[in-house]
Formats: sequence, C-alpha cells, structure tokens
Amino acid sequence: MTRQLDFQQTFLRNRRTHISMAHGGGGQLTDDLVQSVFLPRFGNEALNDLLDSAVVPLNGASRMAMTIDGYVVQPLKFPGGDIGRLAVSGTVNDLAVTGARPQAIALGLILAEGLDQDVLEDVMDSIAATTAEAGVQVVTGDTKVVGRNQADGMYITTAGIGTFVRKSRLHPDRIEPGDVIIVNGPIADHGLAVMLAREMPQVKSALRSDVAPLNNMIQRLLAAVPDISFMRDPTRGGIAGLCADLAARTGWHIRLDETRIPIRPETHHAAEMLGLDPLDVANEGKVVIVARASDADNVLNALRNEPLAADAQIIGQVEQPADGLCELVTKMGGRRVIHKPYGEQLPRIC
Amino acid sequence: MTRQLDFQQTFLRNRRTHISMAHGGGGQLTDDLVQSVFLPRFGNEALNDLLDSAVVPLNGASRMAMTIDGYVVQPLKFPGGDIGRLAVSGTVNDLAVTGARPQAIALGLILAEGLDQDVLEDVMDSIAATTAEAGVQVVTGDTKVVGRNQADGMYITTAGIGTFVRKSRLHPDRIEPGDVIIVNGPIADHGLAVMLAREMPQVKSALRSDVAPLNNMIQRLLAAVPDISFMRDPTRGGIAGLCADLAARTGWHIRLDETRIPIRPETHHAAEMLGLDPLDVANEGKVVIVARASDADNVLNALRNEPLAADAQIIGQVEQPADGLCELVTKMGGRRVIHKPYGEQLPRIC
Repeated sequence: MTRQLDFQQTFLRNRRTHISMAHGGGGQLTDDLVQSVFLPRFGNEALNDLLDSAVVPLNGASRMAMTIDGYVVQPLKFPGGDIGRLAVSGTVNDLAVTGARPQAIALGLILAEGLDQDVLEDVMDSIAATTAEAGVQVVTGDTKVVGRNQADGMYITTAGIGTFVRKSRLHPDRIEPGDVIIVNGPIADHGLAVMLAREMPQVKSALRSDVAPLNNMIQRLLAAVPDISFMRDPTRGGIAGLCADLAARTGWHIRLDETRIPIRPETHHAAEMLGLDPLDVANEGKVVIVARASDADNVLNALRNEPLAADAQIIGQVEQPADGLCELVTKMGGRRVIHKPYGEQLPRIC
Repeated sequence: MTRQLDFQQTFLRNRRTHISMAHGGGGQLTDDLVQSVFLPRFGNEALNDLLDSAVVPLNGASRMAMTIDGYVVQPLKFPGGDIGRLAVSGTVNDLAVTGARPQAIALGLILAEGLDQDVLEDVMDSIAATTAEAGVQVVTGDTKVVGRNQADGMYITTAGIGTFVRKSRLHPDRIEPGDVIIVNGPIADHGLAVMLAREMPQVKSALRSDVAPLNNMIQRLLAAVPDISFMRDPTRGGIAGLCADLAARTGWHIRLDETRIPIRPETHHAAEMLGLDPLDVANEGKVVIVARASDADNVLNALRNEPLAADAQIIGQVEQPADGLCELVTKMGGRRVIHKPYGEQLPRIC
C-alpha cells in the first residue's frame, strides 16, 4: 500500500515536471499546460479566447484571423491523405470555423537529413493540390534540416491568416439553450485510419481519413444561414473533447444522442479493434455547428448539397440545466457524462 | 581515377535525391530546393519575391506582411540568448526589414517527451520578455509532443504578421549604383557564440550572441530616413550570402571593404579556432541597410543613437559594372569575389 502510494506520488511528480506525450494530446493535460505555462506569460485579449484562430486587431477598425499548427503525424502518408494535405486542411479549417476567409499560408518545414527527396516532393505536390482546392496561396516558407533520426522524416508547421467579411463573430458566448448541434458527416475516420495504418498495417480496411479543407463549404453555409452561433472542428480530443469543452465553457448542458451520431461500419470496426471510443478520436474533415433550432433545417439543407456534408446530422442539443456537463444518451437509452479525454490515447495522428 | 569518379557520381546522385544538412543551411543548396521544389509548385506574386517576409494583398487596397521560421538551435540556451529569444527576434526582424510593423506572433512548439518543464518555462519566460521588448503579442499557439529522442528537446516555429505604414516598399529593385551598404554593428557574434558553446564548451570566451529584436530601432530609422533602398538581416549565409545574393539579384557590382567591417576581437578569435570565415556566419541582431550615398550620414547618425547600433559602419558600396558580383577588398588591398556559401558550415545555429 505504501509502495503503491510512493509510486503514484513519483508518477504525479514526474508528470508535473516533465513533458509527456499526453501534454500534446489536446486533452486535459494540454489545457493544464495552456493554463499554467502559456496564459500567465502571454495572456492578451486575442490569446485568451483560446479559439481555433485568434482575432487580431489591426491599425484602424479592421481585424484578421491568425492560426498556427504543428504536424508530426506518423506515417507521413496514410489512407486518404498525407502530412501535407493535413497541414493545409488543418490551418484552413481553423481559420474557416471562426468565420474567416483564409487568405495566405506560411509553410515551416523541419526535415531530417536523409529524407528521400521524392517523399518531400510528393508532400509538396499534396500541399499544392490542397491549397488549390481550398483557394489559398502559400506566400512564404522556411526549411530547416536536423540530423538523421532527429525528426521522423518531416515535421510541418503551417500558419494561416484570414480576413473577416462578417460583422458578427462566431463565438461560444452566442450559444443558447435550445441550439442544435450538427456535424457534417461520419466521425472518427481520420484518427482511426492513421492509427490502423500505423499499429495494424496488415489489416485491410476500407477506412480512409476524412482530411479535407472545409472553407468553401463553410463559406457557402454562412452565406445561406448567417446566424450560426458557433463552429469548431473536432480534431484532437474528438467530438467528446469539443462538446465537453463547450458545456464547461458556456455553463449549459449539452445532450448528444448516440443513435444520431453518424459513424461508418469500417470506422466502428477499427475502433473496436484498437479499443478506442470514436467520440474521442480526431477528425480532420468535420465541423461541429451550433445553430438556433429554427435554423436547423436551413443548415441541414445547405450542408446536404455539399459533397463534404451529404451525411450531415443533428447529433444533439444545448439544454437548460446550467450544469456545464456534456451527456451522451446511449443507443440503449442509458446516459453517461462525457469528459474531455485526459491525455493521449492517440499519439502522432496530426 | 574511375573509382573516384564513381564516388563523385554517387555523391552527386545522393545529394540530389536525399535531403542533406546543407539543404537547410541558407546557402546555394537551400536556393536549389526553393527553385526546384517549392517555386514550381507554389509560385505566386507574394512568394516569388523571396524576401524575408511576404507582402500579402488583402481585400481592398490594404496589404500585410507575413513570415514564418523554424528554430532548431542546439544547445537550446547559449551565451547571450536561447531558442525563445531567437524565435521571437528572428520573426520580428524578418517583418521589420521589409518595412512592416510587427503586430502578432503565432507560436508553434514541437516538444520531445521527457523535456524538463523548467526548461520549457525558461524558454517561455524568454519569449515573454522578448515579445515585451519588441512590443508584439503572442496571439495564438500550438503544442505537439513527439517521442523521446525524436526532437532535441524542443523545436519552435514562429509565424508573424505585420502592417505597413509606408507607401513605398523596401525592395532590391530600388538599389542603384552609388548606394552605400551599412551594418548596425560587429558581425558574426551569433553563429560563432552558438558554435563555440556546442563544439568547444571548455573554452572560456567573452563572445555572446547578438540576438535581439530590431523592429523599434528600424522603425525609428525609417522615420528619420524614409528613403532607405533596402534592408535585410544577415542570418543564415551571413554578410557574404546576403551581399552575393544582392549583387546577383540586382545585377550590380557590390564592393565590401574588409577594413570597415566591424568585428570584435573575441569573435575573430572564435572564428580562427573554429576555422570559419566571419563573413559566412549568421547574425541575429544585425541588419544590412542599403541607402543613397546622400543619406549615409543621416543613417549613421540615426543608428549611432541606438543602443543596438552604436558601432554602425559603412562597409561597402554598390558600383557600376553590371557584373552581378560581390567583391571583398581585403585588409592587404587584395580583391576576392565573395560567393554565397554553398551548403552548411554551421548546422543548427538557428
């Protein structure tokens, strides 16, 4: 008993004093790092919002959106995408979900010595194709090379800037009880496709990552339904992390209906094999939209005309008890509270 | 002879088909990568300029500057600075030398599992202090964690955006014969301080990196002398790389006077010990200014009031023969052509 306690204390001490994989998982430990290390040092109006992209006030009345993300996915190429498509889509989507129109991308490469130039060129082809699809330009870049085995082939960091055409902001503060929660299609494809490719390369599966730039779809949606409350892309931490976060942040109750959450059979199968809950798994071509109930049909109609949202569904609702919890009504009619994933179930998937 | 030829051919083939440290050195091989891999895929008006920051046209008439840089320096802390001060200064300076006023910084961290949290916090303290010194804000960030030994402690990628208050652009196209070349102080401190700390930690030296944000100094200079032709910070590739590049790009002849190039005795000593030419070595708190000869005194007077430019000097001149070459007049009165460094003499110094 004493020994076990000692072990736990050592574990807790190490976790506090050294970085673990879990600190990069987008879950509770990432939040701890943000709250204890970054915000006390850098806190300012733009950063404190902690949204997918920051709103930067410029000289005069104008403002811009800015975002940055690192990509360390392994393998570099996976079913449905690669690190290049991921880097562009992630940055474009982080801008688009805040209501910004992506304008320019900056590309920071860290390459390992010995990387096959063909691999580099394939990834650059993919970046070129994805930026063309999204309608953005790579305007600047930087390349650093580190020693063999000091980076797994390639890390990419992309930053993006965007402009706002709307006056009103998409912000969690706008969320109200009664709002519906909508997703543009089947969940958990990205994280599970990458994990399956890495952990069980022998398994044949139809599963493919959903990675895609969503900005054009989102802009058409905002044109059709201007009064959307909020949007966010459920990447690290998945639907569970996003909805638990929103409940905690807004203080309302969020109810998710398991029967209404779209999930492909092959995704479900992969999740079972890997022992993962699809709700916790990252998506890279999905957006969660919070809208007034009176707009629900308009949102679904607008989305279902889109190739990237043909299977859009209402998956839940914001409700009155101000308990700050997210609850899942299971297929069996049971109810369980959904927590933000604590640490890192899925290392290196983005 | 045949064997040697075979060896050379294999070497050349490998160099072409695999990434080497030299591809990240900011020299000729980096240029090759830019010309053969990046520009054909991403080429656009903003990118093609290949300046320190891109000028991004926005909706309407306004435009912004955007830049990105990765930092992989080893050791993370070195005499005179650390990776955090380097990352902020590098980004701020890349914006400032194009005439932009830095507005916001985005911070992308890639951490290795097991990194001591105290090291992370020290670097974040340094970033906070340097952003305060420069008067910019960290508005957004991202943290990824990779496995133990998969990144040497920490890589940082910083992106920055800035606004333009000037109408006219600082651009190499504005350079004319007769223009003087000015540097704000002694050269080569950064690269040699890092190399000495890494390669000869037993050597005691007064040498310290010059890493510093130059934006406030540059803005005061531009207010005092609005008609500067061009500026650039001589980072990777050093003064040699910058001046050889400018000569090639403008087509004019650039003459540097070795006797007028300021260099500290301890820097000279370190260069001798490490077998390096100070002209090739990266600076992180220096700017090379090209100005009309009639403005030379105004520039020097404005600079010499600045703590970061007390030893500013005219180090050369743009001359008439349109041969696209940079030439150094040595202390002995000899002349030699200065080439852009080919590859990577100084790995991982930024």
